Amino acid sequence: MNLNEADRLTAWKIANRLADAAGECCLRYFRSAGLTSDNKSAEGFDPVTVADRSAEEAVRRILSQERPSDGILGEEYGTTVGSSGWNWVVDPVDGTRAFIIGAPTWGVLVALNLGDAPVLGLIDQPFTGERFIGGFGRAELHRDGSVTALRVRNCSSLDSAVLMTTFPEVGTADERAAFERVRDRVKLTRYGMDCYAYALVALGQVDLVIEAGLKPYDIQGPQAVIEAAGGRVTDWQGGPAHNGGRILAAGDPAIHSAALRLLNPGT
Amino acid sequence: MNLNEADRLTAWKIANRLADAAGECCLRYFRSAGLTSDNKSAEGFDPVTVADRSAEEAVRRILSQERPSDGILGEEYGTTVGSSGWNWVVDPVDGTRAFIIGAPTWGVLVALNLGDAPVLGLIDQPFTGERFIGGFGRAELHRDGSVTALRVRNCSSLDSAVLMTTFPEVGTADERAAFERVRDRVKLTRYGMDCYAYALVALGQVDLVIEAGLKPYDIQGPQAVIEAAGGRVTDWQGGPAHNGGRILAAGDPAIHSAALRLLNPGT
Repeated sequence: MNLNEADRLTAWKIANRLADAAGECCLRYFRSAGLTSDNKSAEGFDPVTVADRSAEEAVRRILSQERPSDGILGEEYGTTVGSSGWNWVVDPVDGTRAFIIGAPTWGVLVALNLGDAPVLGLIDQPFTGERFIGGFGRAELHRDGSVTALRVRNCSSLDSAVLMTTFPEVGTADERAAFERVRDRVKLTRYGMDCYAYALVALGQVDLVIEAGLKPYDIQGPQAVIEAAGGRVTDWQGGPAHNGGRILAAGDPAIHSAALRLLNPGT
Repeated sequence: MNLNEADRLTAWKIANRLADAAGECCLRYFRSAGLTSDNKSAEGFDPVTVADRSAEEAVRRILSQERPSDGILGEEYGTTVGSSGWNWVVDPVDGTRAFIIGAPTWGVLVALNLGDAPVLGLIDQPFTGERFIGGFGRAELHRDGSVTALRVRNCSSLDSAVLMTTFPEVGTADERAAFERVRDRVKLTRYGMDCYAYALVALGQVDLVIEAGLKPYDIQGPQAVIEAAGGRVTDWQGGPAHNGGRILAAGDPAIHSAALRLLNPGT
């Protein structure tokens, strides 16, 4: 399915409108007194707050009015089947653990998916006022009314690369070992920034992100932004990233390949 | 040495002026194309940039004009001995590793020390526009022209506590093991936010920070802010924190004690 210019404009506008509404909800609760979280996980700590829920409700309200035939996949309220071929993939608060400790590294993630890889995505950080958006060959950072083109940076070898991840908090022992093979080769590794790490790849500040255990709504927004900024996002086998799981994102294709080889040493 | 009301006002104004000047320098270089870092460490990676240096130069220029008899301890240019009894302790960019990857979790740290613990300190994050300042019984967050009182939160037991640290990036094996004894008891641990973690304690969003290998200029600003907000900052033995080293910061004295016991299991 290809979108004509008018459809692309509509998609771009709707994505921004969803992020505006979700971000406004989230900011109402960010650092608010008495914000509590429920734990969604039986084994660990997977918090959800009233911010996550109300932001996704706001997104769904807009879509039901403006795009009633579109499908929705949202972290908090699951799948709504559509008939238009357009599917909105939404994580109202990516990085809820950052959100509940007051750190400005969570984000609102929105992507438009027409059946395969996302064609448009955004990462919005309402507290810093940054919106990273990419799709249809455009990638931009919007902040305080100014727009900057997003472009990944060149990085030809791992020993000059900056790597980010949410590890050591997430991942199995095997996944951690694979990650550490890359970590041991790069110049600098930084931890714990959730979706903000992907934004920094698109911004040309970070070279690699390696994560595991992601859901489709965790990666489709970031994936579209990075791809539009010239980067590469796949799973750890080099296959499609949009279903989540183990993710490798890189600004420069050369270190994407180098990291893939370290993640899969036997192949 | 006790400061009268006029001296306190002067100290408060000078601290803010130093942060204004340093922050302006830093923002000029933050995310700028072509920013490079030099490595100050023989063993590892301890980056310094033109932002660190020019921000400290700006601070020293102001002090040489306004407070020529004061002493200075700065990360980049060392100690300037004074005669007034006032010593300004400055880290122009705490979290240079965050700075060079474009993440907004670094900060400008300023403290005023009259010979022992700091009496006034601030943590400034110029990109988010947040200034956390504390001393003389006042603790405030300034942002966008609004002022909010800072107050640590109550947290009576470790199993409901949020812990932050720069580990696993810093620390010896023994230090990591001690840290992990606390980590294994808390509700949530988050990594890698440098001085921003201390700001979140003062803001009542985070309960504990545990770090090692700090210098006096890394801790005196945060220490003054947290103490003015009602929290407690010591070394891992419960002694003075202002010389740096191994640091334990807590919002609630109850979990400060509980964490101390885990850091020193034999005592």
